[in-house]
Amino acid sequence: MEHVTGRWVPLILAALAPGPMRFFELRRRIEGISEKMLSAKLRILVRDGLVARTVEPTTPPQVSYELTELGQGLSRPFAQLVRWISAHTPEVIAAQQRYDHSANPAGQAISSL
Amino acid sequence: MEHVTGRWVPLILAALAPGPMRFFELRRRIEGISEKMLSAKLRILVRDGLVARTVEPTTPPQVSYELTELGQGLSRPFAQLVRWISAHTPEVIAAQQRYDHSANPAGQAISSL
Repeated sequence: MEHVTGRWVPLILAALAPGPMRFFELRRRIEGISEKMLSAKLRILVRDGLVARTVEPTTPPQVSYELTELGQGLSRPFAQLVRWISAHTPEVIAAQQRYDHSANPAGQAISSL
Repeated sequence: MEHVTGRWVPLILAALAPGPMRFFELRRRIEGISEKMLSAKLRILVRDGLVARTVEPTTPPQVSYELTELGQGLSRPFAQLVRWISAHTPEVIAAQQRYDHSANPAGQAISSL
């Protein structure tokens, strides 16, 4: 469970939905992810059998990543989760504003410490 | 996205599915979660409008938590995700074993460092 939930895996699976992709193309599609983080997450996803890593016999050899059948299977409930989150984000933000207002009616700046 | 994905939120939402629950009953249902972690996650979920916190007028006052309508809405795609993960865990484990074997045929102990 821990492998697949978390901030980056849903975004990586969604970014790979269109098909096979090189590393930098994939990184370009995922806002805010570092090279190091993307490499680490891809290694986990390849090991979990959710993403396939292919070395193309070009010169120099090129590596591409794509969802396996298992990865495509996992993408479906994730896509529904992402759709639900996008559709309901305004309601969550409104709830946060009500909570912050009730917790701090005078609206003083709350220290983030 | 970051609030709701991650290891604990899916498990808290699933544990609250049956209905309103006291803190320690909820903690009992979620293996491995600390009091501090559960309190922190509940605070986020209440602020996000996904969980309602009710103080019952008993002596001493008792606090119970329950999913809001928004929280119930989020639970559905999560329940599908959890079902998919449970149904496919054997395939993921088999993929991990193939990966580990191919990465380390002689089967030497791989240092976790």
